[in-house]
Amino acid sequence: MRHNFLGMYRTHNCGELRKENIGQKVQLAGWVQRIRDKGSIKWIDLRDKFGITQLILEEGKCDGNILKTASELGREYVIQTEGEVVERYSKNPDIQTGDIEIRPNTLKVLSVSKTPPFTIEEESDGGEELRMKYRYLDLRRPPLQNNLQLRHKMLQETRRALDEFGFMEIETPFLIKSTPEGARDYVVPSRLHEGEFYALPQSPQTFKQLLMISGYDKYFQIVRCFRDEDLRADRQPEFTQIDCEMSFVEIRDVMDTFEALVSRLFKTVLDLELPAFEQLSYADSMRRFGNDRPDTRFGMELCHLNDLTQGKGFKVFDNAEAVIGIPFTGGGSYSRKQIDALTDWVKRPQIGAMGLVYVKYVDGELKSSVDKFFSKEELAGWMEKAEAGPDDMLLILAGEKARTLFAASELRLELGSRLGLRKPGEFKPLWVYDFPMFEWDEEEKRFNAIHHPFTSPKDNQEQLWEKDPGSLLANAYDMVINGVEVGGGSIRIHRRDMQELVFKALGFSKEEAEEKFGFLMEALEYGAPPHGGIAFGFDRLCALMGGADSIRDFIAFPKNNSARDVMLNSPSGISPKQLDELSLEISQGSKSS
Amino acid sequence: MRHNFLGMYRTHNCGELRKENIGQKVQLAGWVQRIRDKGSIKWIDLRDKFGITQLILEEGKCDGNILKTASELGREYVIQTEGEVVERYSKNPDIQTGDIEIRPNTLKVLSVSKTPPFTIEEESDGGEELRMKYRYLDLRRPPLQNNLQLRHKMLQETRRALDEFGFMEIETPFLIKSTPEGARDYVVPSRLHEGEFYALPQSPQTFKQLLMISGYDKYFQIVRCFRDEDLRADRQPEFTQIDCEMSFVEIRDVMDTFEALVSRLFKTVLDLELPAFEQLSYADSMRRFGNDRPDTRFGMELCHLNDLTQGKGFKVFDNAEAVIGIPFTGGGSYSRKQIDALTDWVKRPQIGAMGLVYVKYVDGELKSSVDKFFSKEELAGWMEKAEAGPDDMLLILAGEKARTLFAASELRLELGSRLGLRKPGEFKPLWVYDFPMFEWDEEEKRFNAIHHPFTSPKDNQEQLWEKDPGSLLANAYDMVINGVEVGGGSIRIHRRDMQELVFKALGFSKEEAEEKFGFLMEALEYGAPPHGGIAFGFDRLCALMGGADSIRDFIAFPKNNSARDVMLNSPSGISPKQLDELSLEISQGSKSS
Repeated sequence: MRHNFLGMYRTHNCGELRKENIGQKVQLAGWVQRIRDKGSIKWIDLRDKFGITQLILEEGKCDGNILKTASELGREYVIQTEGEVVERYSKNPDIQTGDIEIRPNTLKVLSVSKTPPFTIEEESDGGEELRMKYRYLDLRRPPLQNNLQLRHKMLQETRRALDEFGFMEIETPFLIKSTPEGARDYVVPSRLHEGEFYALPQSPQTFKQLLMISGYDKYFQIVRCFRDEDLRADRQPEFTQIDCEMSFVEIRDVMDTFEALVSRLFKTVLDLELPAFEQLSYADSMRRFGNDRPDTRFGMELCHLNDLTQGKGFKVFDNAEAVIGIPFTGGGSYSRKQIDALTDWVKRPQIGAMGLVYVKYVDGELKSSVDKFFSKEELAGWMEKAEAGPDDMLLILAGEKARTLFAASELRLELGSRLGLRKPGEFKPLWVYDFPMFEWDEEEKRFNAIHHPFTSPKDNQEQLWEKDPGSLLANAYDMVINGVEVGGGSIRIHRRDMQELVFKALGFSKEEAEEKFGFLMEALEYGAPPHGGIAFGFDRLCALMGGADSIRDFIAFPKNNSARDVMLNSPSGISPKQLDELSLEISQGSKSS
Repeated sequence: MRHNFLGMYRTHNCGELRKENIGQKVQLAGWVQRIRDKGSIKWIDLRDKFGITQLILEEGKCDGNILKTASELGREYVIQTEGEVVERYSKNPDIQTGDIEIRPNTLKVLSVSKTPPFTIEEESDGGEELRMKYRYLDLRRPPLQNNLQLRHKMLQETRRALDEFGFMEIETPFLIKSTPEGARDYVVPSRLHEGEFYALPQSPQTFKQLLMISGYDKYFQIVRCFRDEDLRADRQPEFTQIDCEMSFVEIRDVMDTFEALVSRLFKTVLDLELPAFEQLSYADSMRRFGNDRPDTRFGMELCHLNDLTQGKGFKVFDNAEAVIGIPFTGGGSYSRKQIDALTDWVKRPQIGAMGLVYVKYVDGELKSSVDKFFSKEELAGWMEKAEAGPDDMLLILAGEKARTLFAASELRLELGSRLGLRKPGEFKPLWVYDFPMFEWDEEEKRFNAIHHPFTSPKDNQEQLWEKDPGSLLANAYDMVINGVEVGGGSIRIHRRDMQELVFKALGFSKEEAEEKFGFLMEALEYGAPPHGGIAFGFDRLCALMGGADSIRDFIAFPKNNSARDVMLNSPSGISPKQLDELSLEISQGSKSS
């Protein structure tokens, strides 16, 4: 070991030689990034994770064998060289080793390389599918190296912080028991126990609660979780969570702790001071932004116009459950054509609005697509309520409440993007709290837990359990940054009777509850401390902090949209012998039945 | 948050109050460890992870309601109290809070507890099965809390060190592809791809090699691995590895790096200076100790006596492939009865020896169970060769070589234990290297890889590939401490042609090799650096450092010997609907066919 754990093949890495090293004999190893050949002189850019160092080979000044070896090199060959650090003829200020180059005394090919199927540069010419198949080559590109480096740093800093905060890292099992939300469990057949299955955890939720009951006080784990969903664009069947739980805490404690964690991550990893966390109730968030994970980097908050717009004879508004305006800052200059394009945009199925009404000044006068139903004073009243000024345009959506809120929320984000108000380097964190306990599942005719069935309800809601369970509020909270839900958690139930009440509200029979969660309910009878916690979507947090939209670029070996690893070609068949050992048969065509 | 992330329920934990706090008003929360009642005075020991603090309740000096609440408390109740820190009448030097006690002004029950099914003390009265079922209660006991605390520290220190050494933490997938060693893979049926399966990794081996090919230079991960074995005493179906890989290294580099890691762990976690690492070839280890993971805390090395013992007419020796002596230090005083007991011990099926020959001094004269076949001079020659002195006893085993080495190795360890030479606080680390590449599988009539199929052979053995593959040596190494193999690794193959040669030697057809490892072989064609690595059994390393034999006590939620989680009752059946979605059927009774 020469130094810095570099190994016997090299004295330095390809990113560290400087002017100060001139005159030294060094040994380097790495990949051939580029070869330039000017007849009597060849330059080789030698690359490793740490940087690029230039080798210079001059006819006459350099052994003939070296020149011969060099002439046989190709892109991505792995070579080792021993030589002298010399000052460059012409410096390259763009790279850190740009003051020097190496005059090799030896040049050895350690591995040859076929020509890669795509270029290994900042931007590659390879398509998505090809780059996934050759993921190990795509991973050589600087953007992916940077992403994984950021992720590495995040991993280290997260654990360092939580360790300092007094959290204990405890590893929970991966082979667990299938749960009622089990429809989305990946299962693992047992060979030793015929016909029985383990499940892979969707989260370590029950284990971390048991650890609080065991008295471990504060737990954390950065842990893989699994969910067998029909995949949407940016979901992965396996994903990583920062999973945490604390004993003897209330909501405020959890918020304080994880504000401290996330602020510290931004500081240490990005050298950014995160602003103070806002707090917003679920109801306020829905009202002001139309969703429960608002991007608060910009204003243009929704304005609820039912009072001012209904009962004036305009049927679309009169029949609407909600009439919602968005004050589009500076939108007053939008042309008719631009407004039409925006109307088309909101009418796309992904947004689902029926149409778009506008109000804006034209030549000093308020104009609107609905001005035959409303007076100038009425229009002015809307503008005033929405805090839209003379240069702005008020855009109005109307219809069924949930859908209109959704469309308004999407439109607001789109307008924010168009105005450049969703600035990449700016981060606005907040907490959303006071979520409902349950949401009604129209298909199954029962309630589902919005967070999960272990979330405690807020105090003093006794009368609602019978009367209106749908309006019960939970001790649940999400951390939101720039419109991304980065984490969510709750104060848990720590009494068996309350846990039974919730299972009942969710439509579990006593037997079902017992079979699936008997161990937890029993544990709650042996002295469970009040406790609560949170889980962060680690892939997403990395992507957010790395300034990217897709989590896939922050996972070394992701699956594609159909949960397939195209590099490994997995999943794949297994042998009849294996199936037999597992006591399983493939039921051909069962899905069509 | 009052301080130290303790939460709203308390100002201090139960382990931190000292003389300096006398006079302060504090708030504590925790579990009732013990209540002592002397009529007019009650003492409550309040416990949390951090320690125990005593509450004192005196009639007259204390609110009647508090006394009433206290009289209803039981073991393991969770309570919260607010009160004043006072000096104790009689100090308790055994606990850190022994100078003080609390006079409560309030006492609130946060959770009641049923009487636990076993005592929650240093030593529990509960049987293994019961404690596994109520693991969350067993985890409250100090020994398990200490074990998990040690594990937490090991996790943090390992990552901190590897980060400093320049290793990058990269998470590899859990849903991967089944491999030829696949017989021991856990598989995961895919819902989206009918009849196809993922496998859970037995190790991230191929991924870490791909990461080296991707240029990540040094990788690590503390990662869960899975192996569906017929369980032996101290195996778990899921276990944790410290998994590492380095580019541009030779064996010496890997050894240096991980000596540095492990020495640092001993220093930071146990405050122990680990002695220098010995190095021992596999052949020497087998010869001197009879196994490839010797406990070098003591001597009594094996002595090979074939030369001196054969051809003298004693059939047992004459017909033996190996005659092996063990110089039992101080064993000269063993009685006939003790020797007989030892003979019975080696003849047990677990050891499998046919008998035991002894040589020792009785009244100044050498005696032996075989002295009618050998002269005193011959016996003296054996003693001399084995370096056995006048107070020692030479024990001799004979028979087929591998079995005799095994028995001799076991006997040596047993004697070492009896002599107290395997001292708990002493640690003797070493490397065993130069392992064979392959071992012959008599059942399957083919070679198996001793390490794994990606291990490179040593140089200059070309002639052996055809002639005697069984004697090929590998660039493989194990780290051994006190007779425990804590880690093992190798320099890998980094060229496709060599990888093909090894697959061929292992009896893979070209098609099999291609189907299972095509992606890796192809990756080797795109510029693979020389690389190597190691993996440590983390559970075992923790157990070793924690001074325990069983890894189960260092895993929060282990499975039992039949791979079952008795707390969760897992594995278990899944619903017909789930089976149908996975296109699977249970084949009843298929195993008997």
